[in-house]
Amino acid sequence: MSRSLPPSSRPRGNTVNGAESLVRTLLRAGIDTVFANPGTSEMHFVAALDRIPGMHCVLCLDETVVTGAADAYYRMSGKPAATLLHCGPGLANGLANLHNARRAGSGVVNIVGDQASYHRPLDAPLTADVEGIAGPVSAFVRRTASEATVGADVADAIAAARRFPGQVATLILPADTAWEEGGVVADAAAPVAPPLVAEAGITAAAALLRNGKPTMLLLGGKAMGEAPLRAAWSIARHTGAKLLLERSPARLPRGRGRVQAERIPYPIDQGFAAFTGMEQVILVNTPPPVSFFAYPGKRGVLTPEGCAVFALSTAAQDGAAALAALARELGAPDVPPADPGPRPGLPHGAVSPEGVAQSLAALMPDNAIIIDEAISFGRGFFPGTHAAPPHDWMMLTGGAIGAGIPMAVGAAIGAPGRRVIALQADGSAMYSLAGLWTQARERLDVTTIILANRKYNILLGELAGVGANPGRTALDMMDLTNPALDWCQLAGGMGVPASRAASLDELNTLLAASLSRPGPFLIELLL
Amino acid sequence: MSRSLPPSSRPRGNTVNGAESLVRTLLRAGIDTVFANPGTSEMHFVAALDRIPGMHCVLCLDETVVTGAADAYYRMSGKPAATLLHCGPGLANGLANLHNARRAGSGVVNIVGDQASYHRPLDAPLTADVEGIAGPVSAFVRRTASEATVGADVADAIAAARRFPGQVATLILPADTAWEEGGVVADAAAPVAPPLVAEAGITAAAALLRNGKPTMLLLGGKAMGEAPLRAAWSIARHTGAKLLLERSPARLPRGRGRVQAERIPYPIDQGFAAFTGMEQVILVNTPPPVSFFAYPGKRGVLTPEGCAVFALSTAAQDGAAALAALARELGAPDVPPADPGPRPGLPHGAVSPEGVAQSLAALMPDNAIIIDEAISFGRGFFPGTHAAPPHDWMMLTGGAIGAGIPMAVGAAIGAPGRRVIALQADGSAMYSLAGLWTQARERLDVTTIILANRKYNILLGELAGVGANPGRTALDMMDLTNPALDWCQLAGGMGVPASRAASLDELNTLLAASLSRPGPFLIELLL
Repeated sequence: MSRSLPPSSRPRGNTVNGAESLVRTLLRAGIDTVFANPGTSEMHFVAALDRIPGMHCVLCLDETVVTGAADAYYRMSGKPAATLLHCGPGLANGLANLHNARRAGSGVVNIVGDQASYHRPLDAPLTADVEGIAGPVSAFVRRTASEATVGADVADAIAAARRFPGQVATLILPADTAWEEGGVVADAAAPVAPPLVAEAGITAAAALLRNGKPTMLLLGGKAMGEAPLRAAWSIARHTGAKLLLERSPARLPRGRGRVQAERIPYPIDQGFAAFTGMEQVILVNTPPPVSFFAYPGKRGVLTPEGCAVFALSTAAQDGAAALAALARELGAPDVPPADPGPRPGLPHGAVSPEGVAQSLAALMPDNAIIIDEAISFGRGFFPGTHAAPPHDWMMLTGGAIGAGIPMAVGAAIGAPGRRVIALQADGSAMYSLAGLWTQARERLDVTTIILANRKYNILLGELAGVGANPGRTALDMMDLTNPALDWCQLAGGMGVPASRAASLDELNTLLAASLSRPGPFLIELLL
Repeated sequence: MSRSLPPSSRPRGNTVNGAESLVRTLLRAGIDTVFANPGTSEMHFVAALDRIPGMHCVLCLDETVVTGAADAYYRMSGKPAATLLHCGPGLANGLANLHNARRAGSGVVNIVGDQASYHRPLDAPLTADVEGIAGPVSAFVRRTASEATVGADVADAIAAARRFPGQVATLILPADTAWEEGGVVADAAAPVAPPLVAEAGITAAAALLRNGKPTMLLLGGKAMGEAPLRAAWSIARHTGAKLLLERSPARLPRGRGRVQAERIPYPIDQGFAAFTGMEQVILVNTPPPVSFFAYPGKRGVLTPEGCAVFALSTAAQDGAAALAALARELGAPDVPPADPGPRPGLPHGAVSPEGVAQSLAALMPDNAIIIDEAISFGRGFFPGTHAAPPHDWMMLTGGAIGAGIPMAVGAAIGAPGRRVIALQADGSAMYSLAGLWTQARERLDVTTIILANRKYNILLGELAGVGANPGRTALDMMDLTNPALDWCQLAGGMGVPASRAASLDELNTLLAASLSRPGPFLIELLL
């Protein structure tokens, strides 16, 4: 409701206030984790958390940590976290990682506290167009009209966030709807299973795979689970089709016993090469493949001219069931993944991408979670880690850098008991390094390896890619040595112990030590 | 133009490409500073900077530093800087400080590189609703349609940014419009003087000031320059009116020889008290006063019921001329500011707000620039610094915390040769600490004093303000001691030397040492 005058205090009876109805509605839906950077407009939410047990509140010192953590939490736990953000600017600070969450298909329930409904028209300094800021990243945006509807509104937001494969939902909560008595706890609708692919689609895909033309199965989104990957692998072995994955999986099961598959390469010419000779591409939970950026004189679509593209399933459909049905339709026998060979031993000598991958493969524990924001240095990490123990690999889905440290927070909280190893480019780490503090505060088992090339290395490649030769100004704009960042001091300042490695042997020693003890650790790896 | 196919390379003749036309148009308008966090879509802009001399490129490692610096640069230099931001997420990362810039009335020319026009429909991962993200903070948003219009478009953006008192203008630059030949350099329209206040307005205000009722002159925005402040002070002395300033001045000239005036207090009850007894309020370049937030059972409008409010000038009018005319109309003689008494000596003993203010007053050099993001600890700094040497005081205009470190960057670059002293709350500093790196890289004369209370102290007050008693969860959410941030390590990691002070004597020593030598320094002041 829009109030023309401030409401008076009412005595507390058996009712709850809006904030309490919100917390209870979240808990009733099984949402028990909130990543928070609260401000004044969220004080009643915080006070409600005092009175109602059961919510794990994770304090983050910058909203980009809040939202990046919520994204990774969903990727690992399969259920949304709530976020608590302060007014339009607080939401804005978390927008880039919500963009990544949107691209990942992650469910997030944003609670954005805002000016009281009767105060908003006065345009006090923090007043902003919250709906306008939320819109570009959110599948659901609503401003709560009254304390009586807070519960129902958050229930709708939860339902929207859970919609397969997961969506960003943003509920704007005017302060008075939080503090007024009269809240009503609500039940969120049960999650709905994703739509199945029609039988005709299965039959059509099978026909393509039987017609003898060079064909690719391109998997993305939720079709990259262990079971659908194995089905796709079995189909590929049976039909001769090529199997490829989207460029940046939100979560990919990897390592010994899992299907080995490569991703669409980032460099555009390698992207074209991955599709060379293909006459048919079957998409499973992924859009038609395009280059990450455009380059002068080059096409943006990666499939060859004349290549037929068939969408077996969209990201919102049950691609796993479709692949299983397709395997049955084709009579493709289940084939175990290829043997990746023996687990690598420890590497030695100078630091290289292959050496870092080998060190990881040699040392990572079972069921590790790898957070990959390695950017330019990390493109060669896949081949060297096929023979590692089973693990999950999480990537930067939307290209908005600065996700890695926050994602490590969310992954560790979303999958307790599993070690998180974050492969983190130094330039990208600077957008969200405050997340290290939360790692220390929550005593998370996160090992961060800063890949310290001390430059925006990817941009040097991009500058060449668009046909420019860098001069002094351009080189200066990509150089991080003046001054050099000291990651051991930065981590120490956040309460995370850290040490420096300049060789693979030193990396091995530090990595092994970190993996053997609880809590966060940071390795500055000099490249 | 929207291209259906990628353009082919054309030979370079006497023409310039879009990016070059952009740089030359900026330079021709006198815009010679760009705060940048570039990405792939901006590589042609960066390459153009290589070929065209005269632009000072300031690299920032996070977009919130870019935009906060541009805001303060405008406040000090009076002309817009350009920003260089990468796609929607890059803009989003800078949005909170653009909100502050909008509230400050600062002119900023945002250049947001985006997907090539023909690539955008393919919805590659970094593609976002850039216009949607820009809209809430921008008075001008345009997507360049063609390399031929880049120059004219940026000229329009410059004109919009310069519109009195200053506006945020956002130009979205598709990568192909930057790289294609056929750019046309343009001239930005000359800045237009702000509209004068009609004679009738002057007469009406004079009548109010003569009718004998208790009257306040409330000044904001560009009416807080040295001359209009002195005119307002002279009017107040002549008529008995009370003089007050808006809560958070974008820039306020202070110290010896300047008018001493207080601001609207932040705590709501003190805010009401500032207007108690007033029957008339005359607004000069500021909106009607409201509380920063709403609180249960309290009004949001600060003026008493029945108080008449008269807008002599809006923020977009020439309030300085109006005050001069009003003084003439009233026959108010020019009155020099009150003598603030002798310059304070050095304070001793335990740290207190008054002691910090005294140390500042005793040690700051002439024409220092004070950046005040002190939040809760800083509310008492004004009285103790009236007797300091002349200086400018800059505040957080939009309430989006994390502006201080970036503003120190922009102020130092916008006013070379003047020492910047940043009074910085620790919690707020965590949103933008990457700005310290730019301070080191550019060797800026910035002394940052981190006011390390190791909690979100303001929120403890706010929680009480909304009537809640903090329990364990709430207290945990406002506590920054687990772990404690080590600001000396954080600064050292960014290349800024730092030291810790736990008493006023130690503060004096470190502050004096920092002021005596060039470059940045950080003092962690334990509260």
